[in-house]
This record gives sequence, C-alpha cells and structure tokens, in this order.
Amino acid sequence: MPLIIIKTSEPEVSTDRVEQIHEQAETILSSVLKKSRDYVMSILEFDQKISFALESGSPTAYIEIKNIGILTPEITEILSKEITAVISKNLGTNPERVYIEFQHFERHMWGWNGSTFA
Amino acid sequence: MPLIIIKTSEPEVSTDRVEQIHEQAETILSSVLKKSRDYVMSILEFDQKISFALESGSPTAYIEIKNIGILTPEITEILSKEITAVISKNLGTNPERVYIEFQHFERHMWGWNGSTFA
Amino acid sequence: MPLIIIKTSEPEVSTDRVEQIHEQAETILSSVLKKSRDYVMSILEFDQKISFALESGSPTAYIEIKNIGILTPEITEILSKEITAVISKNLGTNPERVYIEFQHFERHMWGWNGSTFA
Repeated sequence: MPLIIIKTSEPEVSTDRVEQIHEQAETILSSVLKKSRDYVMSILEFDQKISFALESGSPTAYIEIKNIGILTPEITEILSKEITAVISKNLGTNPERVYIEFQHFERHMWGWNGSTFA
Repeated sequence: MPLIIIKTSEPEVSTDRVEQIHEQAETILSSVLKKSRDYVMSILEFDQKISFALESGSPTAYIEIKNIGILTPEITEILSKEITAVISKNLGTNPERVYIEFQHFERHMWGWNGSTFA
Repeated sequence: MPLIIIKTSEPEVSTDRVEQIHEQAETILSSVLKKSRDYVMSILEFDQKISFALESGSPTAYIEIKNIGILTPEITEILSKEITAVISKNLGTNPERVYIEFQHFERHMWGWNGSTFA
C-alpha cells in the first residue's frame, strides 16, 4: 500500500500512455499520503463492461484506492480531485462518470514480502 | 454508488444479454436501496478463472455490492435473493455457486465527479 | 468465503498449472481458517498491468483474501507467508513484489445460494 486499481471502459491505450497513467497516479498517492513511491502499487484494467446512469456507451471509470492509515474527508477529497483529473486527461473520461472507492486498513490486514506490516 | 461488480466464469454473452444483465441488476439495486438509477454503476467481467468447492468446470460467479449507508441483514438477504436470480436466469449459474460480498461506506469514502459525497 | 483473488502481471499459464494454483491456495485457506474446502473460492487473473516500486517489468502480484470471522495478526501473518510462497513457486514472483489485502466480514455481509450466512 498505497494501492490504486483503475477499471475503465476504454480500450487499451499505448504502452507509453499506460506508463504515464501509472506514473501520475502513483505520484499523487505518494505525495498526498506521504508514503514512499517504493511502496505504491497501481493496476490498470481496460475494456471493462461498465454501465452507469442508465448508459454504457460513454467512457466510464471505477477506481479503488487502498491505504494503511486513516483516510480523512480532507484526504479523500484531494485524492478524488487529483486522480479524477488523471483519468479525465489521459482517457477522456467525463468526471461525472468516475467513481472512487476508498478503504483504509490496519497494519496486520496488509501483507507484503511473505509477512504483514503489523 | 450503489455499485455491483459481477465476475463470472462464463464466456462473454451477446451485447443484448450484457445490457439485460446491467439493466436488471441496476434496477434491483436502485429499488431495494432506494437510490436513483442515475447513481447506479454495474460492471461485468466474463471468462474468469474461478474454482469453488473443489471444482472449476461449472458456471460460478463472485459478486461485490457496495453502497453508501448501512446494509442491514434484511437488505442483504433481499439483495442476495434477487441478484442471484438474475445471474441464474441469464447465465445458467447454480445459486449454490454464487458468492456475494457486501460492503457499506461512509460518505467521505466514496468519490464522484472529482469530489466525494461528504 | 473464504475467498482469494490473485491478480498477476504474468501471462496465462497452462491449465494444469492454473489448477495447481487453485488447489494449493484453497488448501491453505481451508487449513489455516479451519473452513471446509467446499466453501473456498479462488479466482485467478493473469496479464494484469501492474506497476510497483516505480517499475512495471517484473512479475508482480496483488492478492485479496476475504473471510467471515476475525482475521487476527497471527492468522494474517501465516496466510501471507504461505500464500506468497504459492505465488513465488508457481509464477516466479519475488515476494517483495507481492501485496495481500485482508478483509473480514460479518455473517450478513456475505451472500450464498440466494441468501446470506446470517
């Protein structure tokens, strides 16, 4: 952690663009959550079948952001703004068609390197 | 939110059938949770490699349902019944091979339109 | 439940190897969590676009483990060790590039067979 999973209805973009999205999203998580870039993971899933607001033909994204440590309303507000901008800019998604789920975890509920952070 | 993600071991079905599953699932969430259809998102993932009860050859589904606001035992009971029926009817899945995870969220833990619902 | 979802950056492996990963992961969950194998579900997702620690070219995995009933620090420690070993052995993934998210659920927050475990 921190970790971000981005599911988009858009078809796969170029490798360069994929790397840019990874890099921009990870930089935001690292900066806002004050965690080293070395611990940030990001996952992109293209071509998802997503319907939203009675419509499935427009670019739509569903994002999950996970962290060890409390995510306050102030933090989720900033993350929502900045991550939505990345999606909008790189994939042409209308911000009104972007949902983000936030979850925080206790240290023993996150595994890494065959152990946990407890 | 509400949001539903349906992962099925079944191969992709026709576009018409995909739209029917979206429509039926979203109608149930909207109706049971008393939220506008305009805020319901549904995601379908086909061809998933799923093993359950020591067996991976039969149609199997794993579903996640997420909502802002408490999901009581009464509500999850109704949603499990109605959503499982949609999967069973449209994809031929035995209800005994359907799992549903329910999660509820505080308002600041859900982002939309570059902000949150806080 | 218990349920495990394994997302790996590695390309799809042979059907035999897929079955082995299912079997090994399910055996561990059943044994450590003391639940019947009949109720364990496992899902494998290959070819995921994952970036971690500023790098997207090495085998990387993100895993979710879900259970009804409390997951103590002792349990998550054991599961992290054993499940990471399965990933490392079968997919050649460095344990330092494996994250595992753990979540536990109340009985009414898990649906099965058109009902819940409440």
